[in-house]
Amino acid sequence: MSEFRKDPLHNKWVLTVPGRGKRPNAFSYEKSEEEGKADRKNCPFCEGNESMTPPEVDSFREKGKEDEPGWLVRVFPNKYPALNEKTNIGVLKNEFPDIVEGYGFHEVIAETPSHEKDIYSMNQDELLLVLKMYRKRYKILKKKKKIKSVFIFKNHGISAGASLLHSHSQILALPLVPPFMAEETEMIKKAKSCIYCRLIEKAYEGNRVLLESRGFIVFAPYASEYPYQLLILPRIHQPFFEEEEDEQLTILADVIKDVFIRYKKLLGAIPFNYFFNTPYMEKGHWNIQIMPKLTITAGFEKGTGISINPIPPENAVMELKRF
Amino acid sequence: MSEFRKDPLHNKWVLTVPGRGKRPNAFSYEKSEEEGKADRKNCPFCEGNESMTPPEVDSFREKGKEDEPGWLVRVFPNKYPALNEKTNIGVLKNEFPDIVEGYGFHEVIAETPSHEKDIYSMNQDELLLVLKMYRKRYKILKKKKKIKSVFIFKNHGISAGASLLHSHSQILALPLVPPFMAEETEMIKKAKSCIYCRLIEKAYEGNRVLLESRGFIVFAPYASEYPYQLLILPRIHQPFFEEEEDEQLTILADVIKDVFIRYKKLLGAIPFNYFFNTPYMEKGHWNIQIMPKLTITAGFEKGTGISINPIPPENAVMELKRF
Repeated sequence: MSEFRKDPLHNKWVLTVPGRGKRPNAFSYEKSEEEGKADRKNCPFCEGNESMTPPEVDSFREKGKEDEPGWLVRVFPNKYPALNEKTNIGVLKNEFPDIVEGYGFHEVIAETPSHEKDIYSMNQDELLLVLKMYRKRYKILKKKKKIKSVFIFKNHGISAGASLLHSHSQILALPLVPPFMAEETEMIKKAKSCIYCRLIEKAYEGNRVLLESRGFIVFAPYASEYPYQLLILPRIHQPFFEEEEDEQLTILADVIKDVFIRYKKLLGAIPFNYFFNTPYMEKGHWNIQIMPKLTITAGFEKGTGISINPIPPENAVMELKRF
Repeated sequence: MSEFRKDPLHNKWVLTVPGRGKRPNAFSYEKSEEEGKADRKNCPFCEGNESMTPPEVDSFREKGKEDEPGWLVRVFPNKYPALNEKTNIGVLKNEFPDIVEGYGFHEVIAETPSHEKDIYSMNQDELLLVLKMYRKRYKILKKKKKIKSVFIFKNHGISAGASLLHSHSQILALPLVPPFMAEETEMIKKAKSCIYCRLIEKAYEGNRVLLESRGFIVFAPYASEYPYQLLILPRIHQPFFEEEEDEQLTILADVIKDVFIRYKKLLGAIPFNYFFNTPYMEKGHWNIQIMPKLTITAGFEKGTGISINPIPPENAVMELKRF
């Protein structure tokens, strides 16, 4: 049974998941990018291989019934879930140390029926469908009993933690508010004016704005932890991603396309993680953090909570602007 | 110039280091363990290649003068330092966001003149010399002007962040107290009794104690972030590693040897990080955290501050006890 365990000395939680060590590439330290590429025939996320995943919970389709080919985007529970809805509902046991049972939902979003396509090659329409599915699943999972936060993320590439290379995202619905979101909410509450508006203003002053497009802005955060890290967010106050209309999502798909074209031209089809910050709060701007996986988090970072970034964000933006 | 930049939304700092992207394997996401193995002739940490590093600042020797062969353990400044003593002395600029200049020291400790030896094959006497050098450099760096903390760590293996495979450690002297140490100090201050004594007690109750030896205890932390993570610490209150006598360091060398024999038998010569927690405080026990690098920190962990650990620590200890 999964358990959230609170670190007694730091503001960190650990989710212990017995059995998850058994999933493909769980210990992947010796795997190369190439080894991770299962062929089409054995890929559980490919069209035609629907029986290789748990039964689907959602899809956008051109034709066919659930668990049949004909889908454009397909959602199903993770075969090796970090959280399980069958677990007892998450209760904070007031012990030393703290523990919360691992209740929740863990879904996989296959972004395309094609084994070859990925974020670098998908077009705006295809990206838009993925964003619409994020919005749809977010709304559904947010309403589930005892769920306190919903977290959408994507790992691209074996070295960025993807265990399968067929383009996919994940969504977790959690029985607690994660430490980083809780810290962020606290900082936002304490601030006199909107802290995100302030960050946007400072990004202009610091020459860290990569692009702007019809209501969205992309900049490299001042304290970027990773080389070429970028933040995508709406310029106006809007804490809730799930409330964005189709029109905004269409613009967002264009913006994402633009960003990944720049990455590819400058660095190649690099591995990366992205995730959505769309916390429960009245103030703030929801946002997407994109973290390219070019460096390795080592002993210094793990022990201190300080990241080392060899590419200052203002330099990263200068380089990405060339295209 | 290096800068510490405070994340405006979280309890995190980033050290931006222009130019550090130029060091070997800075972007090593496509490198395998094998590729990292420079041959003996081109290895700057090998005996006979002393001219390939900055001039040495310390050594234990059998014979020879500084920057000559004959050393057993050798210390020199990092060629691509994250911190620099030539920078202006670290001053907290009270702006939004916060910034501290990257003043400090960054040293490399070549643990053995041999290109082939490592922690899995070194004997107790060799390990003891490394521990004595840690203690010596810690004492020296702690006394430097404007230094607020000293951090000893080791990255073993390319996938754990080592850019060279010749066995070595690093030591950083910082102009600030890192977030994790500050959090820890805060937790210790707030606790009624010694929090480490409490953790030891709980480790026994939870069957997470791997071994005990003449004053030292090794256990898997309750909220272990990584599979097979272990904590080595003295059983009695002792916050200061640098105050341990030779006798204690000799026992510690035995304990470390024992731990790495178990790792090797169970998992092979795995990549790992370890680091010393020896904060400035009156209470607590100094300790060594060992974090095997078997999994990849991906989007979920980066975005939430929650780690996913597929091997619960009580299971890890059960497995490691078999040898």
